[in-house]
Amino acid sequence: MPDRGRIETFDNQYPARDYTIEIVCPEFTSVCPKTGQPDFGTLTFTYTPAAKCVELKSLKLYLQSFRNEGTFYENVTNRILDDLVAVLEPRRMRLVASFTPRGGITTTVTAEFARSTGDSGR
Amino acid sequence: MPDRGRIETFDNQYPARDYTIEIVCPEFTSVCPKTGQPDFGTLTFTYTPAAKCVELKSLKLYLQSFRNEGTFYENVTNRILDDLVAVLEPRRMRLVASFTPRGGITTTVTAEFARSTGDSGR
Amino acid sequence: MPDRGRIETFDNQYPARDYTIEIVCPEFTSVCPKTGQPDFGTLTFTYTPAAKCVELKSLKLYLQSFRNEGTFYENVTNRILDDLVAVLEPRRMRLVASFTPRGGITTTVTAEFARSTGDSGR
Amino acid sequence: MPDRGRIETFDNQYPARDYTIEIVCPEFTSVCPKTGQPDFGTLTFTYTPAAKCVELKSLKLYLQSFRNEGTFYENVTNRILDDLVAVLEPRRMRLVASFTPRGGITTTVTAEFARSTGDSGR
Amino acid sequence: MPDRGRIETFDNQYPARDYTIEIVCPEFTSVCPKTGQPDFGTLTFTYTPAAKCVELKSLKLYLQSFRNEGTFYENVTNRILDDLVAVLEPRRMRLVASFTPRGGITTTVTAEFARSTGDSGR
Amino acid sequence: MPDRGRIETFDNQYPARDYTIEIVCPEFTSVCPKTGQPDFGTLTFTYTPAAKCVELKSLKLYLQSFRNEGTFYENVTNRILDDLVAVLEPRRMRLVASFTPRGGITTTVTAEFARSTGDSGR
Amino acid sequence: MPDRGRIETFDNQYPARDYTIEIVCPEFTSVCPKTGQPDFGTLTFTYTPAAKCVELKSLKLYLQSFRNEGTFYENVTNRILDDLVAVLEPRRMRLVASFTPRGGITTTVTAEFARSTGDSGR
Amino acid sequence: MPDRGRIETFDNQYPARDYTIEIVCPEFTSVCPKTGQPDFGTLTFTYTPAAKCVELKSLKLYLQSFRNEGTFYENVTNRILDDLVAVLEPRRMRLVASFTPRGGITTTVTAEFARSTGDSGR
Amino acid sequence: MPDRGRIETFDNQYPARDYTIEIVCPEFTSVCPKTGQPDFGTLTFTYTPAAKCVELKSLKLYLQSFRNEGTFYENVTNRILDDLVAVLEPRRMRLVASFTPRGGITTTVTAEFARSTGDSGR
Amino acid sequence: MPDRGRIETFDNQYPARDYTIEIVCPEFTSVCPKTGQPDFGTLTFTYTPAAKCVELKSLKLYLQSFRNEGTFYENVTNRILDDLVAVLEPRRMRLVASFTPRGGITTTVTAEFARSTGDSGR
Repeated sequence: MPDRGRIETFDNQYPARDYTIEIVCPEFTSVCPKTGQPDFGTLTFTYTPAAKCVELKSLKLYLQSFRNEGTFYENVTNRILDDLVAVLEPRRMRLVASFTPRGGITTTVTAEFARSTGDSGR
Repeated sequence: MPDRGRIETFDNQYPARDYTIEIVCPEFTSVCPKTGQPDFGTLTFTYTPAAKCVELKSLKLYLQSFRNEGTFYENVTNRILDDLVAVLEPRRMRLVASFTPRGGITTTVTAEFARSTGDSGR
Repeated sequence: MPDRGRIETFDNQYPARDYTIEIVCPEFTSVCPKTGQPDFGTLTFTYTPAAKCVELKSLKLYLQSFRNEGTFYENVTNRILDDLVAVLEPRRMRLVASFTPRGGITTTVTAEFARSTGDSGR
Repeated sequence: MPDRGRIETFDNQYPARDYTIEIVCPEFTSVCPKTGQPDFGTLTFTYTPAAKCVELKSLKLYLQSFRNEGTFYENVTNRILDDLVAVLEPRRMRLVASFTPRGGITTTVTAEFARSTGDSGR
Repeated sequence: MPDRGRIETFDNQYPARDYTIEIVCPEFTSVCPKTGQPDFGTLTFTYTPAAKCVELKSLKLYLQSFRNEGTFYENVTNRILDDLVAVLEPRRMRLVASFTPRGGITTTVTAEFARSTGDSGR
Repeated sequence: MPDRGRIETFDNQYPARDYTIEIVCPEFTSVCPKTGQPDFGTLTFTYTPAAKCVELKSLKLYLQSFRNEGTFYENVTNRILDDLVAVLEPRRMRLVASFTPRGGITTTVTAEFARSTGDSGR
Repeated sequence: MPDRGRIETFDNQYPARDYTIEIVCPEFTSVCPKTGQPDFGTLTFTYTPAAKCVELKSLKLYLQSFRNEGTFYENVTNRILDDLVAVLEPRRMRLVASFTPRGGITTTVTAEFARSTGDSGR
Repeated sequence: MPDRGRIETFDNQYPARDYTIEIVCPEFTSVCPKTGQPDFGTLTFTYTPAAKCVELKSLKLYLQSFRNEGTFYENVTNRILDDLVAVLEPRRMRLVASFTPRGGITTTVTAEFARSTGDSGR
Repeated sequence: MPDRGRIETFDNQYPARDYTIEIVCPEFTSVCPKTGQPDFGTLTFTYTPAAKCVELKSLKLYLQSFRNEGTFYENVTNRILDDLVAVLEPRRMRLVASFTPRGGITTTVTAEFARSTGDSGR
Repeated sequence: MPDRGRIETFDNQYPARDYTIEIVCPEFTSVCPKTGQPDFGTLTFTYTPAAKCVELKSLKLYLQSFRNEGTFYENVTNRILDDLVAVLEPRRMRLVASFTPRGGITTTVTAEFARSTGDSGR
């Protein structure tokens, strides 16, 4: 079961610089709660670290825990963004989740967090 | 016959966040009212939901109802945008409709809605 | 309703030469007899004419007559090949029918006719 | 001989909305007035209609009338923009004319009209 | 658990013709038996039917049953080919399984069956 | 008016070697005899010279002479091949003529000459 | 030896309009002054003419005069921009010079002129 | 061992102009300090020189000195940027470091320096 | 130091079938013995196993042992093929080694082994 | 002046194996003897060495010696092939010379040598 506690971090060695890290994960898969069929997508995270950076292997394991989880495109995107923001407390972070076609239709969900907006999603 | 009543919605679980959903439908087809010949195009919707998100299967069925409908490129694009805006009441929505070549000429129509402008099209 | 009688021909002006004509039709659409959903595909004909060549506008109209016809991928490919072979009596002809993805799966059917084999399909 | 009188229009059904129409014509050809050699190019029109939209078949015939006309790249681009602006009176229009290589050199000319600037070109 | 009994068929309507069907499944996933990590790949089947064709939805469900199965690249490719050959008894069939990179290395396994060779694999 | 007399040649300096020359002409245009509309295509010549090679500038001028000529795809391809074969007397020559889409349909005609076959086309 | 006197111009027929001309020259070559080895690059000019436009054949000959000239990437880019600005006196001009890889490293130099800045480079 | 003292410079001949130099190095390799495995990436430098430009061969040798150095993606990117800024004192510089996939995940780090911000990274 | 003893194998589970395994390794690097500069390339192995298949992680480590080895393109390709053939004793194996450009020149070496030829290279 | 004496070789270390070496040189340039204008092309050599392999730096210098040489496409291709065959005495060699467009026309010349044919070209 997905749990943000699995996400590990390491200290940002250049906290004074406003730089960005892009992480592309093309092997995301979860299950459609309506049909029980697997969904597949590519997640692209772009963030500016504050005190902490995400450790890549733990991010991979956290994302793999969605493998048999039933969830809609819109919700899984926002939930993963919320989990990473809670753990990393970045200056800003964007998540673009692009799913493979279903019924000839392709869907991409883009959500962003910026510290100043105090945006909490729900 | 196309009817916006066919478009179903579900509740946006993250209404406080200003995020975007892109939906690409490459299998749109209607009929040219002048020649009776079929037209083919790709519709790309990009919107920021307010209270409601569009349900994808109902969107597909709504778009399929244009299959034997006679309509011009410019009109069908604006009409579909109007229908989705009426049903979803999104914060903003853009529709890009890109049609296949006719007589060596390719046409793309782009229309946008933003709540603040109170734009009604006609 | 599809009818091979709609396919018109014109006389091949170079009957002594064994040359080939390739015709690509990316706007083929029919209906799945099981689900009632539209299917979309690209048909590629490659043939060597004997006495007759196919007239392109009549080929387009013949293919458009499948627009609301319910038929499976494998059958529609073989049937269209049979119709063209019956009308054109070519030296040889190949039809490659490549359909858009359904449920994440893409299908292409390839069938060929060669006069010497006397191949009738069924 | 090219004549803007050939360009036909139809009424814009959504005059209140500021939307854009892109028309790509990859089969433009004229003649170089210096060498007598044919030139080839792709014209891309992007405009926001006011009261009128351009009818595509008449646009095609108008562009074909340049087939045996001698004219330089820079002039033909500005002249065609002027003709369309005169007939359509759009809110704004851009024309990008991209010509095939001559002597290893490729040329693209981009001209724009916006109503507020009262730009008349010459 | 994967079971070839899930694969359904329908009668080939053109058994006299030697034609080919290509089916591309880009959403295959199983689990590495050594590391427990998920593997991802694209399976491409190319076959000439004899009496039976494979029904696509049942093929999809059969392939999905490998989702949590631990198996090596080479073995899963040969096993799936064997299962399809056993059920379809085709004239010939090829399976190309192309897996995503691991440790910077990409692997593709290609196996073929032809009736005349009486090839049983093991 | 097209006239094979315009095609100039120069002596092949390496007549003992069986080598090939490919010439791609993407700017071919003629007129459809039925509709009066211009057609556009790419001609690709591949030949093995015997005593003579084609001079490129004269080939260009010869092809330009089709600019206002009414002719069908199949005929113009065979005619140009015949003209070049008559002038160059090559060991072998192939012409692939690929025309731009009309009514959503793309056509390519391929014709070949080989000295040993004594093939005269008509 | 390169000499800006070779660059010829013609009168801009649309001086009142702020439009742009892009000229791509993929066949630039000069010599590295350090190693004596040839360098190869693509020059892309984008400018808005004032009273004068550059004549393309003279531009080609001017650029060819660098063929055996020894010069560094950074200097040749700025020098050519200066020469064209001196001759054309454009409203603004940008030159992007993109050179082929040397030692696995690819270099692109971009320089711009705008009349209002009175920028003279050195 | 990497040492910024290896980076050589030459005088910028056009110090008054604000122009940019892009240098793409696709053959960067270092070693992961955790696993001891080699990492591979493409470094893209984009800078505006002040008094000095970087000499390309010395840049290549400086980058090669990371070949057997153990360092994380985020740190090596910031460190190389700091070294080049210290030696070149440019008006501004950006470094995009794009690494090849590990465990199916691709990482790109982007860091920038601008003189006015006095940004020192750590 | 490269040592074929590092290459591990596992038993081929389908020895009766003549199937192929393609392994692409885009991260190969060694050192030019003449200049001391690093070389980079992509190695593509295509083989038909007999009793043994190569274990991928051990292949990766074997290839990494060339990282600081001085060797020419032609020799390293033949040597790696010989090592794999000695360890795997495959039915047949091909190695395509494609190196990145040096001095504007790109080199690819292709070597093959087939059991029946008894080919030993040297 | 081009001189085959500049081409250096080194001993083939694997003379018993029939393997191939492909060398791509995209920076070839010579001069048209008719117009005096520079020509540009990509030369691709594919050969199977016998006793000798070509040394790459000497090949580059030999090809650079054509920089100011006036020669036609067909002749320069055959001449370079003859020079390399004379120096390397390979088992077989093919040269594909692909030149950039002139007057909208692109030319590629392909010539081959095989030892058994005793082919001398002229």
